[in-house]
Amino acid sequence: MRYVGPNRPEDTLATLIEFGPEENAFFETRFTSFEEGKSYEPRYKTFWLNVHGLANLELLKFIGRRFGLHPLVMEDILNTQQRPKVEVYPGYLFITARLVHVNDNGEVGSEQIAIVLGRGFVLTFQEMPTGTFDGLRTTLKNGQSQIRKLGADYLVYSLLDKLVDRYFNVIEHLGERIEQVEDAIAAGPRPEHLSEVRTLRRSLLYVKRGLWPTREVVNVIQRDEPDFFHAETQLYLRDVYDHTVQLIESTDALRDLVGSLQDNYLALQSHRMNTQMRMLTAVTTVFMPLSLVAGIYGMNFDVMPELHWRWGYYAVLGGMLALGGGLLWFFKIRRWF
Amino acid sequence: MRYVGPNRPEDTLATLIEFGPEENAFFETRFTSFEEGKSYEPRYKTFWLNVHGLANLELLKFIGRRFGLHPLVMEDILNTQQRPKVEVYPGYLFITARLVHVNDNGEVGSEQIAIVLGRGFVLTFQEMPTGTFDGLRTTLKNGQSQIRKLGADYLVYSLLDKLVDRYFNVIEHLGERIEQVEDAIAAGPRPEHLSEVRTLRRSLLYVKRGLWPTREVVNVIQRDEPDFFHAETQLYLRDVYDHTVQLIESTDALRDLVGSLQDNYLALQSHRMNTQMRMLTAVTTVFMPLSLVAGIYGMNFDVMPELHWRWGYYAVLGGMLALGGGLLWFFKIRRWF
Amino acid sequence: MRYVGPNRPEDTLATLIEFGPEENAFFETRFTSFEEGKSYEPRYKTFWLNVHGLANLELLKFIGRRFGLHPLVMEDILNTQQRPKVEVYPGYLFITARLVHVNDNGEVGSEQIAIVLGRGFVLTFQEMPTGTFDGLRTTLKNGQSQIRKLGADYLVYSLLDKLVDRYFNVIEHLGERIEQVEDAIAAGPRPEHLSEVRTLRRSLLYVKRGLWPTREVVNVIQRDEPDFFHAETQLYLRDVYDHTVQLIESTDALRDLVGSLQDNYLALQSHRMNTQMRMLTAVTTVFMPLSLVAGIYGMNFDVMPELHWRWGYYAVLGGMLALGGGLLWFFKIRRWF
Amino acid sequence: MRYVGPNRPEDTLATLIEFGPEENAFFETRFTSFEEGKSYEPRYKTFWLNVHGLANLELLKFIGRRFGLHPLVMEDILNTQQRPKVEVYPGYLFITARLVHVNDNGEVGSEQIAIVLGRGFVLTFQEMPTGTFDGLRTTLKNGQSQIRKLGADYLVYSLLDKLVDRYFNVIEHLGERIEQVEDAIAAGPRPEHLSEVRTLRRSLLYVKRGLWPTREVVNVIQRDEPDFFHAETQLYLRDVYDHTVQLIESTDALRDLVGSLQDNYLALQSHRMNTQMRMLTAVTTVFMPLSLVAGIYGMNFDVMPELHWRWGYYAVLGGMLALGGGLLWFFKIRRWF
Amino acid sequence: MRYVGPNRPEDTLATLIEFGPEENAFFETRFTSFEEGKSYEPRYKTFWLNVHGLANLELLKFIGRRFGLHPLVMEDILNTQQRPKVEVYPGYLFITARLVHVNDNGEVGSEQIAIVLGRGFVLTFQEMPTGTFDGLRTTLKNGQSQIRKLGADYLVYSLLDKLVDRYFNVIEHLGERIEQVEDAIAAGPRPEHLSEVRTLRRSLLYVKRGLWPTREVVNVIQRDEPDFFHAETQLYLRDVYDHTVQLIESTDALRDLVGSLQDNYLALQSHRMNTQMRMLTAVTTVFMPLSLVAGIYGMNFDVMPELHWRWGYYAVLGGMLALGGGLLWFFKIRRWF
Repeated sequence: MRYVGPNRPEDTLATLIEFGPEENAFFETRFTSFEEGKSYEPRYKTFWLNVHGLANLELLKFIGRRFGLHPLVMEDILNTQQRPKVEVYPGYLFITARLVHVNDNGEVGSEQIAIVLGRGFVLTFQEMPTGTFDGLRTTLKNGQSQIRKLGADYLVYSLLDKLVDRYFNVIEHLGERIEQVEDAIAAGPRPEHLSEVRTLRRSLLYVKRGLWPTREVVNVIQRDEPDFFHAETQLYLRDVYDHTVQLIESTDALRDLVGSLQDNYLALQSHRMNTQMRMLTAVTTVFMPLSLVAGIYGMNFDVMPELHWRWGYYAVLGGMLALGGGLLWFFKIRRWF
Repeated sequence: MRYVGPNRPEDTLATLIEFGPEENAFFETRFTSFEEGKSYEPRYKTFWLNVHGLANLELLKFIGRRFGLHPLVMEDILNTQQRPKVEVYPGYLFITARLVHVNDNGEVGSEQIAIVLGRGFVLTFQEMPTGTFDGLRTTLKNGQSQIRKLGADYLVYSLLDKLVDRYFNVIEHLGERIEQVEDAIAAGPRPEHLSEVRTLRRSLLYVKRGLWPTREVVNVIQRDEPDFFHAETQLYLRDVYDHTVQLIESTDALRDLVGSLQDNYLALQSHRMNTQMRMLTAVTTVFMPLSLVAGIYGMNFDVMPELHWRWGYYAVLGGMLALGGGLLWFFKIRRWF
Repeated sequence: MRYVGPNRPEDTLATLIEFGPEENAFFETRFTSFEEGKSYEPRYKTFWLNVHGLANLELLKFIGRRFGLHPLVMEDILNTQQRPKVEVYPGYLFITARLVHVNDNGEVGSEQIAIVLGRGFVLTFQEMPTGTFDGLRTTLKNGQSQIRKLGADYLVYSLLDKLVDRYFNVIEHLGERIEQVEDAIAAGPRPEHLSEVRTLRRSLLYVKRGLWPTREVVNVIQRDEPDFFHAETQLYLRDVYDHTVQLIESTDALRDLVGSLQDNYLALQSHRMNTQMRMLTAVTTVFMPLSLVAGIYGMNFDVMPELHWRWGYYAVLGGMLALGGGLLWFFKIRRWF
Repeated sequence: MRYVGPNRPEDTLATLIEFGPEENAFFETRFTSFEEGKSYEPRYKTFWLNVHGLANLELLKFIGRRFGLHPLVMEDILNTQQRPKVEVYPGYLFITARLVHVNDNGEVGSEQIAIVLGRGFVLTFQEMPTGTFDGLRTTLKNGQSQIRKLGADYLVYSLLDKLVDRYFNVIEHLGERIEQVEDAIAAGPRPEHLSEVRTLRRSLLYVKRGLWPTREVVNVIQRDEPDFFHAETQLYLRDVYDHTVQLIESTDALRDLVGSLQDNYLALQSHRMNTQMRMLTAVTTVFMPLSLVAGIYGMNFDVMPELHWRWGYYAVLGGMLALGGGLLWFFKIRRWF
Repeated sequence: MRYVGPNRPEDTLATLIEFGPEENAFFETRFTSFEEGKSYEPRYKTFWLNVHGLANLELLKFIGRRFGLHPLVMEDILNTQQRPKVEVYPGYLFITARLVHVNDNGEVGSEQIAIVLGRGFVLTFQEMPTGTFDGLRTTLKNGQSQIRKLGADYLVYSLLDKLVDRYFNVIEHLGERIEQVEDAIAAGPRPEHLSEVRTLRRSLLYVKRGLWPTREVVNVIQRDEPDFFHAETQLYLRDVYDHTVQLIESTDALRDLVGSLQDNYLALQSHRMNTQMRMLTAVTTVFMPLSLVAGIYGMNFDVMPELHWRWGYYAVLGGMLALGGGLLWFFKIRRWF
């Protein structure tokens, strides 16, 4: 058991919420060291223990022993780069998932949340407080809330529901950025746009890699775990499952759009190059013959009768104008401008 | 329960149609407020309650309670951005699907229709009246129509059949636009065409995202729900299923064509550039040597014997003509023009 | 029931062939109106009723009633843009498939054939006589033919076998055209080739869309319909199934080749452009410095000592030759020509 | 039954090998006409009848009758363009597969081998002797060989094993040619390389189309035919199956490499064009201003004071050198050379 | 049985480790010849025989006989180019897998490891010592290690776990190289980058071809082999399986990035070409008209009144400046610079 990450042991914070279906059956407390935990006695039927910070190994080991968690579960809690998954152990269900968010510089990141669902209790483990579940705590205080009535499995549903909502935010954000880049490329393609397209592509890949296994997790717990989830909660999980399917389709649609952005970039650039080439060709075709004429009458031959004609100069200038104008007219009717 | 959309509560309009297999067993009425609904007593065996406008939450809640709809069903009715799906609840079947249409500016949009099929009744919920089902109401008045005989499940089949017909219209419209863009590109590729190609690609993606789950919905209700659909109606649903499969294949074929449009665009542009490049190279290759000759005989050296020859000027002019003509002939046999 | 197509009612032609396993058990007759059909009495064990032309609705309705065809079957017979499919109805099997052919202008088209297989009879419906099944009629007259012995199901196998053979012809034709276009592109890419590539791509897509469901149809009737097909006939259907698989693979291989045709086109065009660019660059690089030299000695400065040298002119000409030759030699060793 | 191919009837050669598990139980004989075959009496438990040449229809029909082969089997033997397949008939198993080889001009071709495995006998049919199975005959003479002990099914395994080995040779050959083309393109892309890439792509497609169904054949006979293959032989077939899987993966990897060859070609050509463009731009940018300066001082105005300065000519030459050098230096720091 | 590879017979080294669950139940010995092996008597419950070097066929045959290995197993051990697989034989399980590593020149290579798991023993065969499993030996000496307690199947898990860890290293290495190449391309695309992209693509393909079957192997032994693996070990194998899934996803993500690298390369090169083309066009468009003007006034006509004007020269110079400046300004507002 080893933790590699930014947490320091003293930042670990365990919050315990106990609740029951009765109106006043709610109690919340916090531990920062595992000594406090040892002597604790639960009061109500169901409790939710949330741990922020994973560096206090002693506390985590204590929790592991207290709830009989398998060594592999403990390792998965500490290894925060897990692929989302669900695993059944005797007496409890172990779920990991990823909480996505958008960085200040617009990149998509994520944090792991590990959830243990047992009979009458839920344990959650995160590296950092993200505020995603603050609303849940408030809801729990309300004696009428569904979670109070339906218990631990509905709490897990609520956690997953919040988590999936975060994906909606991220997808929406990425959709807006794609439109911005699209407009910018239409205004004038520049190499910076390509690196933005790459960042978007990578972000979508990142989101997709988080969503696919999450869908699988929700699917598995909805279908195969009647022991841990009531029939009523399973209806709600089916709803979360539909949301993940919708999210995956949106991600695929955005990926399609990003793919065509790059094609668009190249097509626009090729169009610009075409325009320049047309101009270059026209300028060259118009001026090269004229320059040749001027060069011919700049030759120093003794015998060049035209040079001595009265209107020779004007005739040549006129001829040049006619030739140049004719070529321009030719390009015009060929629709070059 | 929350509705986010353009409807105002006072626009909500509920239409109730009652009917039975007998010749005159048809009755139609309208409510705009839920007070009217409370005291209503049904007359015939089967009824269809259609609600336009989703902002009158009080009415919707009343309907929900009256027919025992699950809170998740109510949420799905109000959230009009659902993916099409079918869900079985005790006593009724809940279906959502999308009614596609083409905007005035040629983009494809869609609206959600939510259908609840219970024993002897059908509920439908839409944001706006779209006129798609007006024909159905007329058919229903006819005492000989199949719906009168086969009841609620056949009515749901008829709704889905109309809905799928709309997809045929949209696909046909997109097929025509693809041909137009193809002709326009062949006439001369311009960047506007690319953005049209993008719009078409997006529209087809949109249609496909509506069709796939619709096919799944029809498949599920045709195969797995013998409780809600008679054997006779299932034959008809199989027909609708075949239509969705055909539509999906058409969409894929159109996507393939749109994909090759972009390739075509690039190939044509590259061809034009090639033509210009050929012209530029030919002009440069013909005139540069001639200009050099003119330049040489424009030099001011004291000793340049050619300048004093009797026929020097004419010889040089003739040489230039021969050189230029030779180069043009060379390009001719290399098939540059 | 509505028919939209080129047929006129008076063109409808129904051909009835009765046959049995005995040597002389063969009889053929034709109806053009349904009055003739009403009073008809069959003679032998098995009969095949083939209808060309779908506009005589009265006759079709009569046939539908006579053989107890479901309204959906009648609609599918009249709607000639169906996707191939097979459907089981009580007492008969309904199959639709597509007869492909190559138009005079090289495009691939198809017509629908609807087949109804019941106990002891086969009904077929086509818009036009295509001649595909003429050989079958001749075979049937022969008292030793397999169809006479094995009856209606073997007749359906024979129809499908002929139909699949037509696909082989079309695939072969497309394969030859691909090779022609390939040779033409290698000889010199022109935009016309691109539109030919598009036509080929579209034709292959068309063939594939006909083949896939046909394979499915043959698979289904071979595996799942022991009631309609004898074990012996099923062996033959397995053979037809193998042919459809082989056809689909050939189509995919041709699609792959067509895809690489477009790449080839672009690569060859890019190669030509490269050659032109090389020529342009070489010409410019050789002549620009020489022109500069000529321009310098064409300046009118009072003091330009070289102009007065005895061999100045010849030295400059020689220098130009050396410079030009050196540059050409430089391009030579860089393998530009 | 009809054979279309290069064989003449008199070239047909049937080789019969009889063998048993005992040390000396081996006997080999040859027939060229079917008269010899009619009166033949087998000696040992197992025999292998190999037929080269398919034009002697009389002999083939005799064999067909003698071993009770179905008419469809006879047709498949004569139609040498079959897709590999396996079919179960009462009393025997019918397998077709393709023997691949590399032509002298480097293209991949194949021949069909048809195998019939019955109780105690194996029949094989080929158009030409290919020498692939010569080693097997030698092995069979050896009294200790596995085939002698395990009988007809192990003989079929041995045939398939040799056949799959041939694919390894072909894949290796194609791998080497891909590397050659890759090196040639890196040395300088030429259009010939593209047609070589196309040939390679086609060859790989050809190999893949032979391998896929072969894998399926081996899979089917290994899993589903315990009647025809002993448990011990099935272990060996599993080995052949692994080889086909490995071959398919190698083919896919090579296809991937061939695909990137074309991309490489285009990228290298685009790089060369870039280099030329850079040179063209640099030459033009350097020499055009200089030529303009020379042109200006070649004008014939009466009043051009610079022309009469003492050091005017040298100043202009110096200015030209400075300007040209400055531009070159500018391109240098922009990394154009 | 034949071995083709770099090993010499005298390099073969067999290491035997015996162990049991007790504290001191550990014993390690080495053989170099098979004579030593013949007379050996095991001491503890479980043993692990590791063979490095495959050229000593006599020793390998002895091992094969001693443990009853099937001839196909022996062949697979010697053929070191196997695809990873697992096969069940009576009494033992045979697994092959690939140990990946990165060469000094950055290419990915791999070696085969063959594992035989029987009741109470594990045999491993490798061509070379790679040091991957040195840590395992140290762990085994520790009396408290899991392997000592859980026995042979847990040892196999540990071997697979180490092997999969190596894939993580290689993937990480490739990820870093992709970023380096990406940065290098952004700094300035050069053809060398393309060949690096190709090497990366090939390496990822190589890794993927090793990972896919490894995942399958782990999946099969985790699910289908309860006879060989305890329930406790299966939990650990599920963990290894998750790792392989994660690795495959990472590989696919990297492949996606490599694919877009090539697109990026082309887009950047096209951007550079565009820039050059713009410069070329601007230079040509500015200087060609100016040169024409200079050429006109360099003509030698007798009658050219402008030449004799007092300010003619200055007017022309001024006009040239105005024209050139105007063109530059035109390009400026068209955003060409």
